Amino acid sequence: MQFHESPRFPRGFRCASRNCGLKPKAKDLALFVSEVDAAAAAVFTRNHFPGAPIILGRETIGAGRLRAIVANSKCSNVATGPRGIENARRMAAAAAAEVGTTADRVLVSSTGVIGVELPIELIERGLAGMSRDLQTDPLVGAEGIMTTDTHPKALSASVGDATITWIAKGSGMIEPNMATMLAYIFTDAPFDAASLDRMLRAAVHVSFNMLSVDTDTSTSDTCALLANGMSDAVDEREFTAALTAGCVRMSEILARDGEGANHLIRAIVRGAASEGDARRLAKSVVNSPLVKTMVHGADPNVGRLLMAIGKCFDCRIEMQSTDAWINRHAVVRGGQRLDFDEAAVRATLAAEVVDLEVSLGLGDASATAYGCDLTGGYIDENAAYYSS
Amino acid sequence: MQFHESPRFPRGFRCASRNCGLKPKAKDLALFVSEVDAAAAAVFTRNHFPGAPIILGRETIGAGRLRAIVANSKCSNVATGPRGIENARRMAAAAAAEVGTTADRVLVSSTGVIGVELPIELIERGLAGMSRDLQTDPLVGAEGIMTTDTHPKALSASVGDATITWIAKGSGMIEPNMATMLAYIFTDAPFDAASLDRMLRAAVHVSFNMLSVDTDTSTSDTCALLANGMSDAVDEREFTAALTAGCVRMSEILARDGEGANHLIRAIVRGAASEGDARRLAKSVVNSPLVKTMVHGADPNVGRLLMAIGKCFDCRIEMQSTDAWINRHAVVRGGQRLDFDEAAVRATLAAEVVDLEVSLGLGDASATAYGCDLTGGYIDENAAYYSS
Repeated sequence: MQFHESPRFPRGFRCASRNCGLKPKAKDLALFVSEVDAAAAAVFTRNHFPGAPIILGRETIGAGRLRAIVANSKCSNVATGPRGIENARRMAAAAAAEVGTTADRVLVSSTGVIGVELPIELIERGLAGMSRDLQTDPLVGAEGIMTTDTHPKALSASVGDATITWIAKGSGMIEPNMATMLAYIFTDAPFDAASLDRMLRAAVHVSFNMLSVDTDTSTSDTCALLANGMSDAVDEREFTAALTAGCVRMSEILARDGEGANHLIRAIVRGAASEGDARRLAKSVVNSPLVKTMVHGADPNVGRLLMAIGKCFDCRIEMQSTDAWINRHAVVRGGQRLDFDEAAVRATLAAEVVDLEVSLGLGDASATAYGCDLTGGYIDENAAYYSS
Repeated sequence: MQFHESPRFPRGFRCASRNCGLKPKAKDLALFVSEVDAAAAAVFTRNHFPGAPIILGRETIGAGRLRAIVANSKCSNVATGPRGIENARRMAAAAAAEVGTTADRVLVSSTGVIGVELPIELIERGLAGMSRDLQTDPLVGAEGIMTTDTHPKALSASVGDATITWIAKGSGMIEPNMATMLAYIFTDAPFDAASLDRMLRAAVHVSFNMLSVDTDTSTSDTCALLANGMSDAVDEREFTAALTAGCVRMSEILARDGEGANHLIRAIVRGAASEGDARRLAKSVVNSPLVKTMVHGADPNVGRLLMAIGKCFDCRIEMQSTDAWINRHAVVRGGQRLDFDEAAVRATLAAEVVDLEVSLGLGDASATAYGCDLTGGYIDENAAYYSS
């Protein structure tokens, strides 16, 4: 699938972002609006301590219709008790008033430090008049939801008459398992909420749910899909394929921008006995600190790759039928290290994308997981007081 | 329980260590010998790619009798195929010849780089004459099995007439799940192999199996318990308690000496609905990179503690009944962050031992996990070419 060279919105969607005083100067408030009510679906974090916006969002998405999304960074409104819920409702109401709808048509997201009360007055004041700033560049909205991201993240592509636009943020506390930190997907295709929900879950299963920066699952993860129906009808299979391709690409972009990361790591597991095994093994590879530091150090230490697969005690693995490749160089055959050209493999590890492939020789199931290397930058960002 | 101020061996055990040329100068070969055959039990890594010494060791321990343990560092003899097994057998035979027993009475361990052929001739030459060096300081043997450890690790304690001595190594690739990297326990108490096996599994369950430096499970983990019966009979309950206390203390020592670590982290989970839940939640806390960097940065970021508990999707958790403490300061009540004295808590995080406690208010089950902080030192050690 071809993504547009510069990301753009589908018909009827616009966005704005501002600094409302949560951060010293950077943008900290974003608003995404559809001209008309959009059918909508969303998936949220499975963390047992969901933020107030998640608790409210589960209620809001029940109706399957959204007009706007409002999101702030810097403060996640998590572990804030009943006051947190009240503040999330005030945020929805303020955005609704600004765009001319009701609060139950507004999805709220907050991201940032956990356990700090949301400065709701700053957000309410920030939202006032914000609809006048609405414009058509998705990157402007993406900028408003950044935390430790090094760049705003947006993609778009065409499917028949329709357009799909993906906007996301996130670089730490990322092993979503239901959706990434914050990912919003907009389309003008005409689908109902039930279809959107089905398509979104299928796409997330192989993309954001296979992404891990650091094994830590945020309390604020949200992925929402809005379809305002302003385009002609689109083939559902074609749409699902495009939706999935964009979610996979966005997962790669998020992994590559993981805190402190220099490399995107793709762990590709083939020949597994079951899809569950393939997914767990691929995740185990991208989550292993020793694999991650090996990529950081450009060290073709294949033992670590075998270790990371082998530590999945409950997966079916036969040492004798296990083969492995680093950037398409064969390094293991039948569970035994091959006598490969180390200098050549080490040279390929300088590339931005590192593919670690394992073939189990047991069945037809496969999976790919997306991760990044582990560097001193991750430590520095997260050992700083109240980094997030 | 009181440990001896300087560790010493039970009656009839001695050890020696040497440099046999695997490392440039440091000791790389260790030999532990009992005067008489000892009853023995052992547990090994559950990694699907066990090293050749593990494959051989499972066979050897079947008889429940050992006379000696021989261990080398620098090369783990893992992913080395049939030749690896042959080399492990040669190592057992050479040690047996040196101490005057048969190869089936010798447990072999190798630790170090994966996927490199064992330089068996160096080891055979190194073993020749080594029985002349045998002496009674356990630290001498502990020195011979070090890899990235910053100090040799040995403990001993008395139980009735008997002595127990623990020797271990390990600082990376450590989330044992069956036993730690290498841990040898010697006693002169008179127990049979079946009793030893039962007691060892019980002790390992709450100690080495609750230890994690980096979530990575080594392919060489071995924990063996040898009892040569040279003391008077000892009460089994008292012995099990002492055995367990020593394994717990050794787990703390290994965690504190984790690669690059400055702190021992103890995650204590109480009030869980089941022991399984308590164990998984405690492990989740010590394994979270964001909790580990928070301790490194002396940052009382309680949100990360809640996140690490909350991401255990399959555990029973009620936000409303969850309380938490950092070094005995209450920081969360009913799933909500308390307004605690941040400066005071931050000051306690400078201590070498950091206790993170969570009470779930759901049942009677509890568990403690042992881990360490994550620092630039871990990255540096593991991004270096072929560090292990």
